[in-house]
Amino acid sequence: MVISNKIKTAIQNGSMVRLMFEDGIKLKIQYGKDAVFDYSLGNPDLPPPLAFKAALEEVAAEDKPGAHGYMPNAGLQETRSEIAKYLTETHWEELGAIFDVDHVIMTVGAAGGLNCVMKAILDPGDEVLVLAPYFMEYFYYVDNHGGALKVVETDSGFRPVPGRIWDAIGKKTKALLINTPNNPTGAVYGPGELREIGEVLSQASNRFKRDIVLVSDEPYRKITFKGIKAPSVLAAYDRSVMVTSFSKDLSIPGERLGYVAINPRMAGAGDLSSAVTLANRILGSVNAPALIQRVVKNLLREEADLGMYEERSVFLAGELRKLGYEVSEPEGAFYLFPKSPIPDDLVFASLLREENILAVPGEGFGRPGHFRLSLCLDKPMIQRSLQGFSRALEKARHSFDGEGQ
Amino acid sequence: MVISNKIKTAIQNGSMVRLMFEDGIKLKIQYGKDAVFDYSLGNPDLPPPLAFKAALEEVAAEDKPGAHGYMPNAGLQETRSEIAKYLTETHWEELGAIFDVDHVIMTVGAAGGLNCVMKAILDPGDEVLVLAPYFMEYFYYVDNHGGALKVVETDSGFRPVPGRIWDAIGKKTKALLINTPNNPTGAVYGPGELREIGEVLSQASNRFKRDIVLVSDEPYRKITFKGIKAPSVLAAYDRSVMVTSFSKDLSIPGERLGYVAINPRMAGAGDLSSAVTLANRILGSVNAPALIQRVVKNLLREEADLGMYEERSVFLAGELRKLGYEVSEPEGAFYLFPKSPIPDDLVFASLLREENILAVPGEGFGRPGHFRLSLCLDKPMIQRSLQGFSRALEKARHSFDGEGQ
Repeated sequence: MVISNKIKTAIQNGSMVRLMFEDGIKLKIQYGKDAVFDYSLGNPDLPPPLAFKAALEEVAAEDKPGAHGYMPNAGLQETRSEIAKYLTETHWEELGAIFDVDHVIMTVGAAGGLNCVMKAILDPGDEVLVLAPYFMEYFYYVDNHGGALKVVETDSGFRPVPGRIWDAIGKKTKALLINTPNNPTGAVYGPGELREIGEVLSQASNRFKRDIVLVSDEPYRKITFKGIKAPSVLAAYDRSVMVTSFSKDLSIPGERLGYVAINPRMAGAGDLSSAVTLANRILGSVNAPALIQRVVKNLLREEADLGMYEERSVFLAGELRKLGYEVSEPEGAFYLFPKSPIPDDLVFASLLREENILAVPGEGFGRPGHFRLSLCLDKPMIQRSLQGFSRALEKARHSFDGEGQ
Repeated sequence: MVISNKIKTAIQNGSMVRLMFEDGIKLKIQYGKDAVFDYSLGNPDLPPPLAFKAALEEVAAEDKPGAHGYMPNAGLQETRSEIAKYLTETHWEELGAIFDVDHVIMTVGAAGGLNCVMKAILDPGDEVLVLAPYFMEYFYYVDNHGGALKVVETDSGFRPVPGRIWDAIGKKTKALLINTPNNPTGAVYGPGELREIGEVLSQASNRFKRDIVLVSDEPYRKITFKGIKAPSVLAAYDRSVMVTSFSKDLSIPGERLGYVAINPRMAGAGDLSSAVTLANRILGSVNAPALIQRVVKNLLREEADLGMYEERSVFLAGELRKLGYEVSEPEGAFYLFPKSPIPDDLVFASLLREENILAVPGEGFGRPGHFRLSLCLDKPMIQRSLQGFSRALEKARHSFDGEGQ
C-alpha cells in the first residue's frame, strides 16, 4: 500500500460535509442547478463587496518589482500593520491593548492559521478541549500535530458550561478551542460566558502549572444577528489567540487568506509569534498568498452584504417551524441546526436527499439528533426547497410511526 | 511556556536561509539596497512573463459568480485538466502514459505539496531517505508527519550513488525524496542515474515487501543549462510522484501555487490521489488559492526569462574561479555551491558578510566545507560583488595561514 494506515482510515471515514459537496456537484449535473438545494457546505454565495473587485483590479494592474515574490514568513508588513491598527481600534473598549505587526501572522485561511497555532503549542499527547457540537475538521487540526481532541458538551441550548470545562481539564490539557459565532449552532458567546471561561482557564493553569491557551476561531465574527455584537474573546483571558479569515467577510473563501492575532497582553506573546511564524514556514505555506494580501490591505472594514444571512435565517427558521420542525434561532454565523424529527439524523438526512435537499447530519458535528443547514442559498431557492422539507418531515413521521408499531 | 518544546528548539536552531533573509532586509535598510549582495534566499528576481500580467488582469476583471469561492479540495477542474494534458505531452516520449485530472492535485506551492505527500504516505516512524546536500526544510516536511529523515551522501561531484541508497534502505523506509535540478548543487540527474535509482527502489520494495515511493521535488525543472533537458523522473519508476510549482517558472513564489502529479502507471494511483487531496484539506490549505489557479491555466508553456540564470551562473562561476575559488558548474536550478576556501564554512560566510555578501554555509545543506550562492541578483550587482569575494578570500587565506602557524 502506498498510503499510510492513518490516512486510509481518514479517507474511509470521509468528511460528511465534503462528501456532500462532491455529491451535490454530481446531483446538480444530473438534475440541474436550480433543482438541487445544497445546504451542505458553508460556501458563501454572496458576491464580494464592490470594493474588493476594484482593489483586485488595481493590484493586478500594478507594476511593482518583487510583488509576487517571497516575503517574511509572517506576511506583508503593510498588511499586518493595517490589521494591527484595525484590531487595536475594534478591541480597544474591551481589551485596551495595542497590537503591533508582530502580533499578526498572515496565514492560508483560518484553517491554515489553526494548524499553525496547534503546531506552535502542542507537544505529543497534549489535549485540546472543544465544545460540542463542533466543526469536525478540528479533530485533524489537532491530530496533525500530535495532539488529542477532548470533547466537552455544551448544554441543551448550546451554551458553554464552565463547570464541565473545569472538570475536563487535566494535566495534559494545553488549550481550549472555541468557535464563536458558532458553526453549527449559531451561538455567540457573551462577555459573561467568556469571562467565566477565562476564569476557569486561569485557575486551571495555576492548578496544573501549565500555560493553557484559549484559541478562538472567529471566521464568522462579523456575522451576528438581532443587534448582537460578538464580544472580544481576547479581553476575557490574556493567554489567548484569535484566528480568523477574510473568507466570510469578503466572500472569498477560495482565496485562502486569514490571520492569527496574538493577545498583546499575553506573557510570551513574542515567543508565540515566532512559533506561529515558524509553523507557517515549515508546514509548507511559507507565506500566505501575496497578491490577495495586497488586495485586502485597505478592505478591513468592507464586507459582503452579510445582512442577507440574517434575513435567510429568520425566513427559513420561521418556515421550518410552521412546517413542524424544532429550530432555535441562531445569534450569528450562517447555519441553522434544527432538531431531527426522528432520532437517527443520518436517516433523516437521506430522506432530505430524496428531495434533493443536502443537509449535514448532526453526527458530523458530534451532536446526533440534529442536522445542519448552511444558509448559502438565495431566498427564492430556500422558498422552493420548503415543499421538500415538508415531504421529508411527513415521510419521517410516517416511517417512525411505522417503526413504532 | 506557551509554545511547544519541539518548536522552541526549532526556533533556536532557526533556518539559516531565513535568518539571512531577515538579516539581509536589515542590512539593506542600513546600507542601501545596492550595497548589499544578497545571495542567500532563492527568491527569483526576474519579472514574471508578460503573459502572466495580461492573464492576471483578465481574471481580475472577470465577473464570474463563485470565482473566489471554495472548490473541490484538489483544485479547479479546468486548471488540473490543462496540467494533465501538459504533463501527458511533455512526458510522453519517456513515460508514454496519460495523465487525467485525478493525477493532479493543486497545492500551496511545492512546499505545501511535499507536506501533503508526506502526510499521505507516512506512518509513525517511517523513514524518508534524502541525498545530501539537500534543502534543509525537508527535515520538517518529513518530521511534521511523524517521519524521520535519513541522509544518504552523494559522491564528491554531487551525483547519487545507487549502492549507498540500497545500503540505506531498511524495513522502515517508505520513500526516497530527490530534488532535480538540485538545490544547492545544480546537479540534474540523468536518465541512466534515474533508472538505476528506480531499479534500487524496485528491488528494495520486493525485498522489504513495502511500497517504497519516489518523491521528486522539481520546482527547477525548467531551469537547465548547456542544452541539458531534465529527464522524466516518473519514467524511471512507477511508484513515483512529482511535486512542482509555478514559483520559478513564472517568478511568482509569493503566490504559493504548485501541484502534485501522480504517476499514472502507479498501482494505487487513485488511492494516493485521494490521500493527497485529503491531506490538502486537513492540513488547512483546503484548496490552493483560487484566483492564481485561473491565471496560470493557460500559462503552462510560458516562463520568465530563465536563460538569465545560466548567464549569471557562467559569469559568476568564471569570475570566482579567476579569483581562486573552486566552483563546479551547475547543470540547472539557480545556485552555485563553491568550496569554502577554509574548512569552516560558517566562519567563511561571516567573512563574506563583512563584505555585505550574504551566502548560506554548506552546513545548512548537510554538506559543510561549501557555501551556497543564490543567483537571484542581476549581473551588474554580481559584478560589483566580486571585489568583496576577492577580499573575503584574501582574509580567509590570511586567517587560515595564521591559524596554521
